[in-house]
Amino acid sequence: MKAAIMGYGTIGSGVAEVLRVNRDVIAKRVGEPIDVKYILDLREFPGDPEAGKLVNDVNVIVNDPEVKLVVETMGGVHPAYEFVRANLEAGKSVTTSNKALVADMGAELIKVARENQVNFMFEASVGGGIPIIRILQTCLTGDVVEEITGIVNGTTNYMMTEMTENGSDFDDVLKDAQSKGFAEKDPTADIEGYDASRKIAILTSIVAGQTVDYQDIPTEGITHIDSQDIRYASKMGRKIKLLARMVKTGDTYCCRVAPYLLPSEHPLYPVDGVFNAVFVKGNMLGDSMYYGSGAGKLPTASAVVGDVVAMAKHEKRHIFVDWKDEKLELSDPSEQTNRYFVRANKVHIFPDAKIIPAGVDNETGFVTSLLSEKEMKEKTELLGKVFKIIRFA
Amino acid sequence: MKAAIMGYGTIGSGVAEVLRVNRDVIAKRVGEPIDVKYILDLREFPGDPEAGKLVNDVNVIVNDPEVKLVVETMGGVHPAYEFVRANLEAGKSVTTSNKALVADMGAELIKVARENQVNFMFEASVGGGIPIIRILQTCLTGDVVEEITGIVNGTTNYMMTEMTENGSDFDDVLKDAQSKGFAEKDPTADIEGYDASRKIAILTSIVAGQTVDYQDIPTEGITHIDSQDIRYASKMGRKIKLLARMVKTGDTYCCRVAPYLLPSEHPLYPVDGVFNAVFVKGNMLGDSMYYGSGAGKLPTASAVVGDVVAMAKHEKRHIFVDWKDEKLELSDPSEQTNRYFVRANKVHIFPDAKIIPAGVDNETGFVTSLLSEKEMKEKTELLGKVFKIIRFA
Repeated sequence: MKAAIMGYGTIGSGVAEVLRVNRDVIAKRVGEPIDVKYILDLREFPGDPEAGKLVNDVNVIVNDPEVKLVVETMGGVHPAYEFVRANLEAGKSVTTSNKALVADMGAELIKVARENQVNFMFEASVGGGIPIIRILQTCLTGDVVEEITGIVNGTTNYMMTEMTENGSDFDDVLKDAQSKGFAEKDPTADIEGYDASRKIAILTSIVAGQTVDYQDIPTEGITHIDSQDIRYASKMGRKIKLLARMVKTGDTYCCRVAPYLLPSEHPLYPVDGVFNAVFVKGNMLGDSMYYGSGAGKLPTASAVVGDVVAMAKHEKRHIFVDWKDEKLELSDPSEQTNRYFVRANKVHIFPDAKIIPAGVDNETGFVTSLLSEKEMKEKTELLGKVFKIIRFA
Repeated sequence: MKAAIMGYGTIGSGVAEVLRVNRDVIAKRVGEPIDVKYILDLREFPGDPEAGKLVNDVNVIVNDPEVKLVVETMGGVHPAYEFVRANLEAGKSVTTSNKALVADMGAELIKVARENQVNFMFEASVGGGIPIIRILQTCLTGDVVEEITGIVNGTTNYMMTEMTENGSDFDDVLKDAQSKGFAEKDPTADIEGYDASRKIAILTSIVAGQTVDYQDIPTEGITHIDSQDIRYASKMGRKIKLLARMVKTGDTYCCRVAPYLLPSEHPLYPVDGVFNAVFVKGNMLGDSMYYGSGAGKLPTASAVVGDVVAMAKHEKRHIFVDWKDEKLELSDPSEQTNRYFVRANKVHIFPDAKIIPAGVDNETGFVTSLLSEKEMKEKTELLGKVFKIIRFA
């Protein structure tokens, strides 16, 4: 069976490597070997084992009837969308690791795949090597999913871990992460939570069967977290982590991306460094958690190849995915309740506040009782100087 | 679509409850509702919502062409085997939560299912609500699985957690577990590791594609673990847990069930109480871990119902499972290497030993360098009085 890879960057070259190194075991699982016939990229890769397969026109792939499986690892919405669509319409199954494409165009591309009796898969778009998409779609099918809470961004989890373990400052940790390749030159999408927000939008869409617009999700990054917050967190026996959450509320869902204070008994508490993990609560299953490498060349490529194997085993048989283009109205996040950790110069308007002594001058750190986002906002306006508010998980 | 449940004990009644409570969401996923038509049990259940469905002859189920889906939650190998086989031969798909049946007859029943173009599934036989079977069979398909290490027995994990957290003695913890329903009246299968050994045999069989006889797996329970071992473990920053392990060794695998000393950085270290978790290492994926309720009525029933949904969606279409009846020769466990924690009255024959001071009189606790099981056995014979040997994980 012949495959093509569009985009020969980190993930794309990882996919070629996984298919090469594990060729025999994959052939056994599929029933025949899978070989890469073309690699689409405008760059040249002299000396690369796959260099002879490079093409720079997507139509070479689209028009070759021998190619049945296509991998999209270019990134970005355009022209990835047009290239994926053209391949689906040409009767080829496509898998992508591209969360921007899936968050923006997932329902549309699933529809095109269905119309052409092929498959559009996207396991690697959330959680890297963690098979969370397939777990939700094919394993937890006896349950009503009541909550998903994910550490789905390795960059910010690495940074928060470093700040927690070494007491370092945000700016130093960011520079360190950039020098180690764990953060991009422009880290905005990661540290502002936009990456995590796309991922929880995708997970909520496949659970709800309708499209969640990530722009509807209240999203707060980690840029305001400082070493004093970390000190307070340690005093409380908690860790600050950037979480992407979805909670079922009646017939719809409430989503949020924000730093949260996790208690030590939470399954996500020990998840440190660049690792990712997704906590899922089902109405029958109870608590479960799935942990693995959230990024990195080979773990992500492994998830892509898992899709390639599934697509090869389901050639010309569309696997139904319940994700309609119809937009899902999320529930009003101001109704959500939380306990909050607050650093401010006044505390008296929170009669039930629990003071946290962490030896920081000219302010009081305290934890509120359970309040709705709306109540909290009203109280905050009366607070005077507020230095920080972080939610309890 | 009509289903039947054979065995209306804890899990069987849980399956009926999941199908009842989540009827609408399951109907949406399958395309039509799934209703229980018969429940096979010799007992009576007056007042139970399903009491009217009780039958006591398996042939009522076998001979009813309307029943397409059968759940086996009777336990034990016989007559479960005969009942499952008769249903498969009558063209019905069957799922079981019965690890004894799967460990003994898995390959055979898969073959019967294939011959009749139906499915035999067994997600709930390992890890309760953790979908580890489906993860290995349909998610991690791009990888060579190099290691599986599982906490797959909730009873022993609860007991080790209690001993670690409260410094309690083995016998007291066992009585407590029995009074809370976490251990059976006859706890042998759990505390001697036999339950865990069947489970790692099943997982290794589906990874290898051949049958692992659990009786070939060196199995050591937790009955010899005492509160002084726990004290040494704490001194080393480790926890003692009963692990079921499989490691790829060339073309075959090495399996073992035993108590191990887990370091704090291992993903399984925080898995406490009745929870289960399975660590899987792939050659491309790297480390991953899957965590959830390993037992209990509803979590286990949730896994069974996941299979029911899959079987309903694949009516009359056998899903290929690579598990042949042919016996797999495991590799020689005496070649396996480990570091060992030893309590003995001599230490001098281990020149690299690291002494662990835990204030226990008349003995020395120490950790060896990396040794094969064979080397360790030879040295142990020279040791004089040996009080305890526990492997490092």
